[in-house]
Amino acid sequence: MAHIYDRVALIGLGLIASSMFWAMKRKGLAGEVTGFARSAETRHIAREIGLCDVVYDDIREAVRGADLVVLCVPVGAMGPVMAQIADVLAPGATVTDVGSVKKDVIEKIIPHLPEGVHFIAGHPLAGTEHSGPRAGFAELFDNRWCLLVPVAGSDPAAIARLRSFWEGIGSNVEEMDADHHDLVVAVTSHAPHLIAYTMVGVADDLSRVTDGEVIKYSAGGFRDFTRIAASDPTMWRDVFLTNKEATLEILGRFTEELFALQRAIRQGDGDHLFDYFTRTRAIRRGIIEAGQDTDAADFGRGVGRKP
Amino acid sequence: MAHIYDRVALIGLGLIASSMFWAMKRKGLAGEVTGFARSAETRHIAREIGLCDVVYDDIREAVRGADLVVLCVPVGAMGPVMAQIADVLAPGATVTDVGSVKKDVIEKIIPHLPEGVHFIAGHPLAGTEHSGPRAGFAELFDNRWCLLVPVAGSDPAAIARLRSFWEGIGSNVEEMDADHHDLVVAVTSHAPHLIAYTMVGVADDLSRVTDGEVIKYSAGGFRDFTRIAASDPTMWRDVFLTNKEATLEILGRFTEELFALQRAIRQGDGDHLFDYFTRTRAIRRGIIEAGQDTDAADFGRGVGRKP
Repeated sequence: MAHIYDRVALIGLGLIASSMFWAMKRKGLAGEVTGFARSAETRHIAREIGLCDVVYDDIREAVRGADLVVLCVPVGAMGPVMAQIADVLAPGATVTDVGSVKKDVIEKIIPHLPEGVHFIAGHPLAGTEHSGPRAGFAELFDNRWCLLVPVAGSDPAAIARLRSFWEGIGSNVEEMDADHHDLVVAVTSHAPHLIAYTMVGVADDLSRVTDGEVIKYSAGGFRDFTRIAASDPTMWRDVFLTNKEATLEILGRFTEELFALQRAIRQGDGDHLFDYFTRTRAIRRGIIEAGQDTDAADFGRGVGRKP
Repeated sequence: MAHIYDRVALIGLGLIASSMFWAMKRKGLAGEVTGFARSAETRHIAREIGLCDVVYDDIREAVRGADLVVLCVPVGAMGPVMAQIADVLAPGATVTDVGSVKKDVIEKIIPHLPEGVHFIAGHPLAGTEHSGPRAGFAELFDNRWCLLVPVAGSDPAAIARLRSFWEGIGSNVEEMDADHHDLVVAVTSHAPHLIAYTMVGVADDLSRVTDGEVIKYSAGGFRDFTRIAASDPTMWRDVFLTNKEATLEILGRFTEELFALQRAIRQGDGDHLFDYFTRTRAIRRGIIEAGQDTDAADFGRGVGRKP
């Protein structure tokens, strides 16, 4: 495949950036890939495992001359990072990001955007519970969605090029506006994460049931929650602080619905419960048919194999 | 392996009974296994796939002469089923069950228990989102826990024999009392299921985000909830109706904690969020170390493979 960009700079070298790197290499999407991470340890690991063609100790050196700069830092760091690199961005370059929130990130980045540099916000909907430079793998984005959120005045040619890039990485690409994006991910990602964190916290808190019991007897459903509650704390703190409105709206709807189900339990209204539990099966079926999850029982997690 | 029971009767032929059958055959734990299901269609499928040595159309024939009778019906059906079979139970036989709630089941079964028949309540902590006679497989219980809940006056020899049986099936076995059991599973299974059902219902309800979007963009966390929200509606209706107190207690604690996190989000208290999200990671680690889940990223669900 011909290069889509000559020089791509990855800023922040965690799960997403490292997976992007291996996916770019798999298809030859970039001439050269440079990288920068704030932590010296992360840069050291990146050099050790060959993550990026060159890893720079100076963020401005990493960005210099790049025709694509991908910001892969926590949402709260996007604005400060953009301020640091703005004046070394090459004219005609595209800046994008992979943050889970779009309205706040756009607001923080636009004020620093130099004339002649394109900014197109992005969000690949893919991840695992592992983080850091060693966590990446080339297939992470295959058949997953990447949402692009162009800002007012985004250049159509720059958008088309970034779309080809993400398609080359393995994703399906869709465009939407920032408000809608933030609401969609509040439902499909942010609220579920907060709920999972909460449930795991409650279990950990309950003195009449020990942690040992919670762990031993987790196969009844609880362990599915712990996977997503093991995600990176810094990333998720920033997500909730910056997608406040949409997340609180969905949590409000969730609490309302939970109260209605609690009332049905208290009143012994079996029909209400049965109907509710029947309806939710259809969504699962849709996800399997759309190829967004495995239909292997129990995620095919290797039920029962001795560790 | 020598038979532990000469004749085992499985009443109700869904995921659990069918998995028990294949696990018994794998190790030769029973001389003969009989089966009964209320639905003619289920009995037909069972005969077709060789599930049970004999499938009876009459529940009393299935039970006659069995030295172990395993009730694998929804919790709400345990009492009525026991009433139907009580007078054909052989003296010295053991009756057990696999229901997810223990206090209510014991209360419903004991009044029908004939003199000379042992009842030991049981609960294998294993399952998948699939149900019915075709869903079973021999490995379901391997390295999972089975909780036995002896009742007042349970015969120690009968308990020891049932324990060997479950160990032969592949489980680790622990004994506890009914109240503690019902609280432990409220935390590790019942509350998580209700929460997952609720979240999936909310997503399905939200007119500003379509079902299509919920399905397409589910890889950000939501799909993990849909797996457990696809579980059998009848089973789960009965669980919530019969483990009402413990479930409502845990849901109350959950809501309290969720409100505290919502307040932290509203007030922008990043430290509170960060600390909370850090604490929950340890539980995940414990579950992996205890061999109760896979440490493969994303459950090893084959991230990104095209369907």
